[in-house]
Amino acid sequence: MTKERLYLYDTTLRDGQQTQGVQFSTEEKIQIAEALDALGVDFIEGGWPGANPTDSAFFDTRPQTRATFTAFGMTKRAGMSAENDDVLAAVLNAGTPAVCLVGKTHDFHVERALGISLDENLENISKSIAHLVGQSREALFDAEHFFDGYKANPAYALRCLHAAAEAGARWIVLCDTNGGTLPAEIGRIVGEVIASGLPGDQLGIHTHNDTQNAVAGSLAAIDAGARQVQGTLNGLGERCGNANLVALIPTLLLKEPYASRFETGVTREALAGLTRTSRLLDDILNRVPSRQSAYVGAGAFAHKAGLHASAILKDPSTYEHIDPAAVGNARIVPMSNQAGQSNLRKRLGDMGLKVERGNPALTRILDLIKARETEGYSYDTAQASFELLARRELGLLPQFFEVKRYRVTIERRKNKRNEMVSISEAVVVVTINGEKTLSVSESFDERGSDRGPVNALAQALAKDLGPYQSVIDGMRLVDFKVRITQGGTEAVTRVIIDSEDEHGRRWSTVGVSPNLVDASFEALLDAINWKLLRDLAPAESAALIDA
Amino acid sequence: MTKERLYLYDTTLRDGQQTQGVQFSTEEKIQIAEALDALGVDFIEGGWPGANPTDSAFFDTRPQTRATFTAFGMTKRAGMSAENDDVLAAVLNAGTPAVCLVGKTHDFHVERALGISLDENLENISKSIAHLVGQSREALFDAEHFFDGYKANPAYALRCLHAAAEAGARWIVLCDTNGGTLPAEIGRIVGEVIASGLPGDQLGIHTHNDTQNAVAGSLAAIDAGARQVQGTLNGLGERCGNANLVALIPTLLLKEPYASRFETGVTREALAGLTRTSRLLDDILNRVPSRQSAYVGAGAFAHKAGLHASAILKDPSTYEHIDPAAVGNARIVPMSNQAGQSNLRKRLGDMGLKVERGNPALTRILDLIKARETEGYSYDTAQASFELLARRELGLLPQFFEVKRYRVTIERRKNKRNEMVSISEAVVVVTINGEKTLSVSESFDERGSDRGPVNALAQALAKDLGPYQSVIDGMRLVDFKVRITQGGTEAVTRVIIDSEDEHGRRWSTVGVSPNLVDASFEALLDAINWKLLRDLAPAESAALIDA
Repeated sequence: MTKERLYLYDTTLRDGQQTQGVQFSTEEKIQIAEALDALGVDFIEGGWPGANPTDSAFFDTRPQTRATFTAFGMTKRAGMSAENDDVLAAVLNAGTPAVCLVGKTHDFHVERALGISLDENLENISKSIAHLVGQSREALFDAEHFFDGYKANPAYALRCLHAAAEAGARWIVLCDTNGGTLPAEIGRIVGEVIASGLPGDQLGIHTHNDTQNAVAGSLAAIDAGARQVQGTLNGLGERCGNANLVALIPTLLLKEPYASRFETGVTREALAGLTRTSRLLDDILNRVPSRQSAYVGAGAFAHKAGLHASAILKDPSTYEHIDPAAVGNARIVPMSNQAGQSNLRKRLGDMGLKVERGNPALTRILDLIKARETEGYSYDTAQASFELLARRELGLLPQFFEVKRYRVTIERRKNKRNEMVSISEAVVVVTINGEKTLSVSESFDERGSDRGPVNALAQALAKDLGPYQSVIDGMRLVDFKVRITQGGTEAVTRVIIDSEDEHGRRWSTVGVSPNLVDASFEALLDAINWKLLRDLAPAESAALIDA
Repeated sequence: MTKERLYLYDTTLRDGQQTQGVQFSTEEKIQIAEALDALGVDFIEGGWPGANPTDSAFFDTRPQTRATFTAFGMTKRAGMSAENDDVLAAVLNAGTPAVCLVGKTHDFHVERALGISLDENLENISKSIAHLVGQSREALFDAEHFFDGYKANPAYALRCLHAAAEAGARWIVLCDTNGGTLPAEIGRIVGEVIASGLPGDQLGIHTHNDTQNAVAGSLAAIDAGARQVQGTLNGLGERCGNANLVALIPTLLLKEPYASRFETGVTREALAGLTRTSRLLDDILNRVPSRQSAYVGAGAFAHKAGLHASAILKDPSTYEHIDPAAVGNARIVPMSNQAGQSNLRKRLGDMGLKVERGNPALTRILDLIKARETEGYSYDTAQASFELLARRELGLLPQFFEVKRYRVTIERRKNKRNEMVSISEAVVVVTINGEKTLSVSESFDERGSDRGPVNALAQALAKDLGPYQSVIDGMRLVDFKVRITQGGTEAVTRVIIDSEDEHGRRWSTVGVSPNLVDASFEALLDAINWKLLRDLAPAESAALIDA
């Protein structure tokens, strides 16, 4: 059976940028466009040329892509011709092969927001689309508020769509602009649009996640016959976001009825890069990736429950709906007090440590984990600290350096200008191969602001690690989480630190102490040791481990 | 038309706790159960009694609720009677009015994971449910992997459901355990289950968010006839989470066809507390609430685009799918603090501060809050800090004492016995009525353990507050939450401290600084000042405030 073509339209760079606090630079837009092209979307909507300077600059320097580059704009204003509308001209001047113009289809908005007659609006749509076609562009009509408009005045909403189609629009995109239409209703209305004479392979769907149904709404539209889906990476977008292409794409490629029925521009090979693409956007936005994200979240294939974890070891399909590798993600069977020896051996195996069943170190490691979890440690996420603990028990952890002592002073007092200021200062004493080094650091950043005691400690520690200095120079802390595991200031503090290095590797470490500076320092030390281990330690022989 | 009853079943405390890194304390479970009961869910699943000590302790001390308290467990094991299964006995011993037992319905899992015959599994289901009924409990059967099981062997999966129903189960809950079934398929299969002779008002739906369709899958099941929905607050749960009740409930109450067709236990009044309930769970988990969450996210009604924002001012329905107040959320329109002033006066009124409309302090307070929220402060929970800020601007905050400076030293080194130990020491200099006091404290508790720098500071500060000493002696810190609001150690630290006094009053204060000791100290100072204000300040006259 020949597969039908289903088109993917990405609007991360345009509608995604409508998110509060999001403003991509031209370089970031180029980086995202290249990632989208590598993924295999069919259209990349780059922004609204003329509406803001960054968007215009981006269109001037946009990368060459296999995907069809699209400029966004709005239909011409009433009282002028399409040729004389300077806003529309700026959009066309970007020179993209495709242009998408948003226009009204809801009578209420035409009369209330635009303040023009319903016929004037129809003419704006028709003349604008004809103008695009006249300039040999692939024309898309973005039917704003279509679903609300259709519910209020179906005849008028449909007339708007047909006006665009008759003027030569290749695509009519049905937008649920306010995000309030539920999937079943979207499916029904798309069916009625097709029944009105617009073929499904000319219809697109554009949903928002205000009821947490944007993905389901898109699927309902496809089920009803629409053949273009619009969305953004990670569901970025105004309010609750747009339809999340990162969740939609694997469903379309891996699940029935879609997998057998449709062909998209995304190959199975590109799909395996999806997790990386999703993380790239979070990196650019400086956001901590959501662990819960469908398919690509760090927790999407993490198994906690004892029963589940042991079944997973027998056969992953018992508790997994797809193979995590298909989307470039990985299974996590975390170490917890519910897990037994077989989980542990599996986990160690994943880290390249093959340990024979019955090795007495296994029991010691399990006991140690249990004891430490009682103290407040958590190895669910802090996999790097877990590896260090296991290696220590297996005799496989080189001692790169030893911290003999440290001292941190935090002072808050008035400065010369009578302002309250804080200063932190740390002294760290380390021995490397029997040689002692004393390092001291203040806590100021490049702008002269105090960053606190943990920063001072981190700076002092990383100041002079002798032979290891070059290895840790590329390391940086990307997240720092503090949790009090019993109430009150007299509680135990758990610190989890996420680190990243120059190769894009990410790892998490944990420290626990009633003293939060101590806890942070412990996690920091683990982070450095893990990096040294990865970059410097020789590969162990299996024989050594079985001993 | 009489509405049909639709039942809401919350499993935050059981399936929600399967999330990596989540382990509720008994007190937290009580707090969540009370919030769920106030919201109006019909069932609260409290955990698995006997499976872990915290769950057992919780059932012993569980609050009295209008909602039906439910214990979770599994069907009896093969080779023993329901009466003799000690795991099942522990579940029944919790004494809850309802019990939910999970059992297999997928032939592959019966044979592969359990290693028993298909008939043995049917008997386990049947005998276990009959045992619950014999003990006069409302019996629920959680059909694990039902959708996968039905797709593989529909006849057997249905036999499992009918076995439970014939044994007297009030509810048969269809679980999409691995989260891979899409909404359309869920709807079709639920319809086929009903066609097999099980009425919809006996069916529940339990979905997971692995394809980002958990909410839509639940709606599809309701559309097909199921009348119980299971989910968790904020979609907490293993992997990508469970169906999010916080997204489902407003859809069921506010949107058609659900609003006209169904009645739930959630009133419109309780719905207006939904945002607060959602934030409460994030507070307990020490998570930053997602801005994008459907209905309750801080960004769910935030409008950025210029065109949208100006239309919103003309008529909010132009770009909003519901009134944000219906779920206790608020609209954010940039450049508009018209709504801000009346909200603020209401909030001040709640604290006993009646301020006239147009008082210039209102604008100053709003500006200050906006500026501080940009710096990382959050006044959603820290009401006491908000009150101090407002009173300062209104000229209604007495200065009880002033901290001139402080210094904290944290040292980690070897003691005489060659063990690594930490010592923190704090010096605080305070003036009260022009008189200077210097206090110093170490950080040791009564057992001689180091409790860290914040404890040393708190002890030094509370050591000699002269005339105020007796007022603060009855105060204690009950919780301490630290959050990093931008990534890395060079981030801003937000500390929220919960305090309690001898009258059982509880209040929350906030401090923000790149230096976490500073941030803690700021929150500590606010906590003490609020206590002094409450116990010592004379009641203000309204005249004074209007001035």
